Amino acid sequence: TEMKLPGQEESDISSASENVPTGELDSGPGSGLSPDGPLDTDSRELEVPKDPPLFIQLNELLGWPHAPEWKETGRWVLFEEKLEVGAGRWSTPHVPTVALPSLQKLRSLLAKGLVLLDCPALSLQELTEQVTRVESLSPELRGKLKALLLQRPQHLIQTPCTGPCWGSAHPREASQEEEAPLKEQHQNPLRQKFAAGAEAGAVLAGQLGFLEQPLGVFVRLRDPVVLGPLIEVPLPSRFFCLLLGPPTLGRGYHEMGRAVAILLSDLQFQWRVRRASSLHDLLAALDAFLEEVTVLPPGRWDPTARIPPPKCLPSEHKRLPSQLRVAKGPSVRRRTPAEDRHGRRQHAANPELRRTGRLFGGLVQDVRRKASWYPSDFLDALHPQCFSAVLYIYLATITNAITFGGLLGEATDGAQGVLESFLGTAVTGAAFCLMAGQPLTILSSTGPVLVFERLLFSFSRDHSLDYLPFRLWVGIWVAIFCLVLVATEASVLVRYFTRFTEEGFCALISLIFIYDAVAKMLTLTHAYPIQRPGSPTYGCLCQYPDPGGNESQWTSTNPKDRDDILSMVRKMLGDFSSVLAILLGCGLDAFLGLATPKLMVPREFKPTLPGRGWLVSPFGANPWWLSVAAALPALLLSILIFMDQQITGVILNRAEYRLRKGAGFHLDLFCVAVLMPFTSALGLPWYVSATVISLAHMDSLRRESRACAPGEAPSFLGIREQRLTGLAVFILTGISIFLAPILKFIPMPLLYGIFLYMGVTAISSIQFTKRVQLLLIPAKHQPDLLFLRHVPLSRVHLFTAIQLACLGLLWIIKSTPAAIIFPIMLLGLVGVRKALEWVFSPQELLWLDELMPEKERSIPEKGVEPEYSFSGSDSEDSELMYQPKAPEINISVN
Amino acid sequence: TEMKLPGQEESDISSASENVPTGELDSGPGSGLSPDGPLDTDSRELEVPKDPPLFIQLNELLGWPHAPEWKETGRWVLFEEKLEVGAGRWSTPHVPTVALPSLQKLRSLLAKGLVLLDCPALSLQELTEQVTRVESLSPELRGKLKALLLQRPQHLIQTPCTGPCWGSAHPREASQEEEAPLKEQHQNPLRQKFAAGAEAGAVLAGQLGFLEQPLGVFVRLRDPVVLGPLIEVPLPSRFFCLLLGPPTLGRGYHEMGRAVAILLSDLQFQWRVRRASSLHDLLAALDAFLEEVTVLPPGRWDPTARIPPPKCLPSEHKRLPSQLRVAKGPSVRRRTPAEDRHGRRQHAANPELRRTGRLFGGLVQDVRRKASWYPSDFLDALHPQCFSAVLYIYLATITNAITFGGLLGEATDGAQGVLESFLGTAVTGAAFCLMAGQPLTILSSTGPVLVFERLLFSFSRDHSLDYLPFRLWVGIWVAIFCLVLVATEASVLVRYFTRFTEEGFCALISLIFIYDAVAKMLTLTHAYPIQRPGSPTYGCLCQYPDPGGNESQWTSTNPKDRDDILSMVRKMLGDFSSVLAILLGCGLDAFLGLATPKLMVPREFKPTLPGRGWLVSPFGANPWWLSVAAALPALLLSILIFMDQQITGVILNRAEYRLRKGAGFHLDLFCVAVLMPFTSALGLPWYVSATVISLAHMDSLRRESRACAPGEAPSFLGIREQRLTGLAVFILTGISIFLAPILKFIPMPLLYGIFLYMGVTAISSIQFTKRVQLLLIPAKHQPDLLFLRHVPLSRVHLFTAIQLACLGLLWIIKSTPAAIIFPIMLLGLVGVRKALEWVFSPQELLWLDELMPEKERSIPEKGVEPEYSFSGSDSEDSELMYQPKAPEINISVN
Repeated sequence: TEMKLPGQEESDISSASENVPTGELDSGPGSGLSPDGPLDTDSRELEVPKDPPLFIQLNELLGWPHAPEWKETGRWVLFEEKLEVGAGRWSTPHVPTVALPSLQKLRSLLAKGLVLLDCPALSLQELTEQVTRVESLSPELRGKLKALLLQRPQHLIQTPCTGPCWGSAHPREASQEEEAPLKEQHQNPLRQKFAAGAEAGAVLAGQLGFLEQPLGVFVRLRDPVVLGPLIEVPLPSRFFCLLLGPPTLGRGYHEMGRAVAILLSDLQFQWRVRRASSLHDLLAALDAFLEEVTVLPPGRWDPTARIPPPKCLPSEHKRLPSQLRVAKGPSVRRRTPAEDRHGRRQHAANPELRRTGRLFGGLVQDVRRKASWYPSDFLDALHPQCFSAVLYIYLATITNAITFGGLLGEATDGAQGVLESFLGTAVTGAAFCLMAGQPLTILSSTGPVLVFERLLFSFSRDHSLDYLPFRLWVGIWVAIFCLVLVATEASVLVRYFTRFTEEGFCALISLIFIYDAVAKMLTLTHAYPIQRPGSPTYGCLCQYPDPGGNESQWTSTNPKDRDDILSMVRKMLGDFSSVLAILLGCGLDAFLGLATPKLMVPREFKPTLPGRGWLVSPFGANPWWLSVAAALPALLLSILIFMDQQITGVILNRAEYRLRKGAGFHLDLFCVAVLMPFTSALGLPWYVSATVISLAHMDSLRRESRACAPGEAPSFLGIREQRLTGLAVFILTGISIFLAPILKFIPMPLLYGIFLYMGVTAISSIQFTKRVQLLLIPAKHQPDLLFLRHVPLSRVHLFTAIQLACLGLLWIIKSTPAAIIFPIMLLGLVGVRKALEWVFSPQELLWLDELMPEKERSIPEKGVEPEYSFSGSDSEDSELMYQPKAPEINISVN
Repeated sequence: TEMKLPGQEESDISSASENVPTGELDSGPGSGLSPDGPLDTDSRELEVPKDPPLFIQLNELLGWPHAPEWKETGRWVLFEEKLEVGAGRWSTPHVPTVALPSLQKLRSLLAKGLVLLDCPALSLQELTEQVTRVESLSPELRGKLKALLLQRPQHLIQTPCTGPCWGSAHPREASQEEEAPLKEQHQNPLRQKFAAGAEAGAVLAGQLGFLEQPLGVFVRLRDPVVLGPLIEVPLPSRFFCLLLGPPTLGRGYHEMGRAVAILLSDLQFQWRVRRASSLHDLLAALDAFLEEVTVLPPGRWDPTARIPPPKCLPSEHKRLPSQLRVAKGPSVRRRTPAEDRHGRRQHAANPELRRTGRLFGGLVQDVRRKASWYPSDFLDALHPQCFSAVLYIYLATITNAITFGGLLGEATDGAQGVLESFLGTAVTGAAFCLMAGQPLTILSSTGPVLVFERLLFSFSRDHSLDYLPFRLWVGIWVAIFCLVLVATEASVLVRYFTRFTEEGFCALISLIFIYDAVAKMLTLTHAYPIQRPGSPTYGCLCQYPDPGGNESQWTSTNPKDRDDILSMVRKMLGDFSSVLAILLGCGLDAFLGLATPKLMVPREFKPTLPGRGWLVSPFGANPWWLSVAAALPALLLSILIFMDQQITGVILNRAEYRLRKGAGFHLDLFCVAVLMPFTSALGLPWYVSATVISLAHMDSLRRESRACAPGEAPSFLGIREQRLTGLAVFILTGISIFLAPILKFIPMPLLYGIFLYMGVTAISSIQFTKRVQLLLIPAKHQPDLLFLRHVPLSRVHLFTAIQLACLGLLWIIKSTPAAIIFPIMLLGLVGVRKALEWVFSPQELLWLDELMPEKERSIPEKGVEPEYSFSGSDSEDSELMYQPKAPEINISVN
């Protein structure tokens, strides 16, 4: 057979004798692609409705000549699923690949074959009539062929409960009455995958001994019709393709059948063929497809290898000229990777972060914007998904409350404790949910603030101060400073928090946590300094195990490895890993009867510190001037709270989460400020938005497309932004205060373990860690990271070295008596980052970090592209497929 | 531009005006492909020498019109490496992909362009003369083009020490004197990758403003010439391709350049082009390439995604008709996956496993065969690789000796110990190395035998027997039974040891080890039964940590995760993980001053049991008839030793290791039998071949191809089969006996940890474990395992369930007082497997297990293929690419 090439179809058409479109050419749904090129106007295209999704099935004729029967051996929506004949199951979905000659043979077969566009057949019977009207067939053969086409095909229908069953395993001729879809077709669970309006394409291929010449028929039905039991799902068929011939070609018909199915599953081809008015258009669509295919060389790639579906599909928008861009594609336009990469920069252009110039101007704006969404913040919560979100976040919140409360209790010698942690979490969390600018953030004790509280406590102990009254004044001052920050619209400065700052912050805090956890456990190894009833004899050498550390490490790697292969139930188990770790650890502790130090929890509802009331006295034993001097640590704490709160805010309001109701940086800080004196006066912990729990909260409220093809990742539609889930979580936390007495069975080493785990997780998640590893990996073995493709290795190393030096400096300061000033040093990171602009080019900073607001404006969009931007074909899109979609940073270690 | 199709080249050639081959057609290295098809005879092909490897480099013309310069932007051997312009580094090697239109445009450009085959140019100067003789160019333009072509190109040469340097960053014209290769070309470390005789292909592509028409030139040089600084490595160039044109095509020239480079890197294309005698042949070669390419549909695959090199390349042998099979391809013919899969079955046809029918017939045969290799067994060891193998295996052996000796000492209350273990390992190992049939196996204490020794000891303690004399008689009887097995050629029965048996054996032993290790550690938690000076007060509740378990888990996952990205040094670290774990554990133990139970090691060179001499008295306190009764346990132990020894033998002699000197199953068993009374009489442990250490030994003696292309895995050439490395290891072990006093610092829990780790590793490595996991994974989320494609899931589950039931039964027997008969039960597995032939079809057993000898013969090779064997295109080859190459089973937990 001769093969055709794009640009040569004219001669084919003149030589083909049977290409008479039988349908009415002008009544079709398409407005017609003019034969010589693109369509007339864009405006006309806008009227074309979105094409329905297409399910394509390949029925293969097997067993000729002894017992010919049709068997479904392949199916396509986006990806290919192949019938594993021996195993009787569908393969995993994979990227369809086909040999080039199959496409070329198909082209020449169709060019010489019968093409019916807008065929008016209304049943399989009628369709069979039409497609067998081929000149080369004698009436007798025509009859035999008709009978064969009406024979009921075998489908493998996999029902989750009953296992695979072979639909209509008894091959027999279907009479006209039997054309109604079968019961198993209706019960096919695949059916739920398709939205209303979905259509089917049937491809029938195989060797047929009595044919002397290959027979190729392509039919577009005018109105889609359910073709009886032809398709495994009772969808109306729009396309029908018949590829039969003598056995000389062997497996060629199967491969041509696959080729036509792959063509039909291509959105661009589909779009063109739905609008084709002649064979010429059909062949032009095939040629356009060939123009775009990627070729794998034979010696370097095994053609039978199955390529798993990529994490994200190439954008259809990039593929073809603009006139095709409106009518097709998934309803939610996919964001291009460039948009994703620049997504974080979008806050620069964000009107919320533009300075108004008025006192409290930003706050007023935030309140105004948020007020308009307020009713919807409750109505939007009316969805069953919110229930599971509440349960999940509730468990995360109380785990957090226990862990931080326990550690705070220990850090402050019991001045505060788990009971305070629960009470504070419940009250402030609920209040924040009701008032905040971004109600998706979950207020919680966070790592940095805990570090500060410990420093503050040791400072006041060293200077024999009365801790809680001193702390009350710090809290009052913090509220004042934060209000000043709100008034002066300081939150617009978050634009200067680049990845460099976030990573420095994260790395320092993580390291402090890892160091502390290990140090604590080593201390426990040697001695047991806190004497309690029932503890073993002082001086006995015992090593306490770290079940918490062990368990949580274990449960944490588990979900990572298997996340992609295990379903929701398993994900939940993984999500509850800390709860499970705590339960397991407690169980082991109790089972082994270990004399571990336990959580300090009062037996009744009263403050953990014996003898104090709920209200902290304003002065206690402290001199009066201490209330003024408290302004100094308060200033430091304000910086810390500002950074912690706003970095969380920046991460949560990233463009990739597509929040509709906007951020509220000023309002959030205002709420945190208002809650500060309240928690201080009651001796409760201090609260800031917590990144990880807030991200988990958002994640549990994702809206995703339901109807997705096999192998396709569900597409992200948005977040259910509302206030109710958070509120419910904190009401439940409030009720859980009465659980507190049970909590005293939790061993402290378990909490250190969880802390260690959090620190390790946080520090492993940042790019900085990857870059530090790069310092040790020889160039040849380095992973194919995006920034390594664009920034010279020596520059990458220099950037890492500067970051390491900053971190080292911070660590040294943290280890001196000046430790308490470390928040200022953190702020210094922003300055260092600014100074880096003298050392690195904007391109380099864009790849390694991101740009700061002024620089950003000064560089044209073009300038941040790679040096040789070869008409886009070399763009870095594709590599992003290999980047995890998860948030980059796990910052506040909370 | 018009595009050409395969089968249409005749008309192209007649229309092309300049296709005059300038070289002598008949003096070329190729014997000429006759234009109309395959070559005449196969015998003629055999004379054709193997084609030299080809390095292809793409020099791109950048910066036109301001500062035109050539820059090397891509290079190919097997895979593509792209210059990361921004980062100034070479990308990781990846599978080259190209858009189909680029190939088609290239075809039409070459069809109309200048093709010089066997061009006699001897320098770049001369070549430039020749290629610029194009009619369409005016003399002036010809001069400009010549000057441009002589301009020195920029190469990025990555030297490991100095980092990347830009070769000749100062673009200037190279005069004829400067044509000698530059210093940096000679220093290019890439040069070492090429064997002598390697050739280069230079592709020059880019936009050139002064050209009015595209210019395509393809040159095959008659004699390969070093073209001055054109190629980054000073290799002589055989091919030269010039693709220049006006900027209308944009990036098209770059893509066409890539296309021609990809073509040249294809072995089949290269073969044809080396022998092409006309443009027609060149285009036919291109068309043949197109016939074989795999196509990726545009909407499902991002064409810019880089596909990492597959673990094994598709076999060139499968690609084309037989006349091409002799002359090309890597020197070692790649084994087809079918061969690999059936490799294990080859021992069935192995003459060594054919029964001679004479007493000791197999042994005599083994001795005769081995004797002929004996001198080479020492001469073959003269290679530096053997030194590192000795060091590595020595460390593994002493680790093993310490661990097993320590555990044996504990299991037998000190009747044997570490000193005996060292002594026995050294003496028996060295003897075995000198005598054995398979000298690559390392004799060692193994798990199963240890389990048996423990059972024997507790039996003799329960019945107040004198252990060592009793054991001596058991040893003597075992030797007798084993000699009977040798005499009757029982080793031919190893053909019945299928995967089912191996896995049952492995799983049971692993579970015993895991159970024991955990139980031991839990016992230590509650009390510390053995009183030693310095231990803490009896009754104090302490939990001892499991540093060994922790460390070894950690170090074990490390090499697994990173193995592919870290070099040899790191692999060594990983290989020594147990040694490191022991050192770390000891360090931690000493640092923390833990009162852990330590290894029992005598202070001098004397038996561990106080008061006994080296020779065990034959009766001791036992009655005389016990020496006869010892035959009963000896029978069981013989079965165990036979299975343990021969399963190791089967694994080591698998076809995939390509041993040349053959196995020696009878001789091996004979050696083990002979050593048995010796070790029993001295109270040393019993020794059997140990799978894991033996495999490690083989692995450290692999011969692999040195010169491999970037991205290509080194190909396996064979094993250095010799006796010297083993001998050296055991001599070193003997010397290490004097280290024994140091060993008493090793805490026992460390050894339990290593044991636990070994058990977990062994049980995780077998297919059985994967199938047990499948029971829990819903069908949709199951991994794409090969057998799941061919065997219905319900049958897989049934097979797993039967295996689980067998295992459960074995475990129950092991837990009853009848425990000691468990070797017989293991043998029962073979019977169960035989019975499975009534339940499963041979196809199913082939996928899940393997076939037993009789069945194997009764099934034609065809019958074991999948049901629909569609002319091979659906074969299971490709999937094997994803199977790890490592030995499937980690069986003897030694």
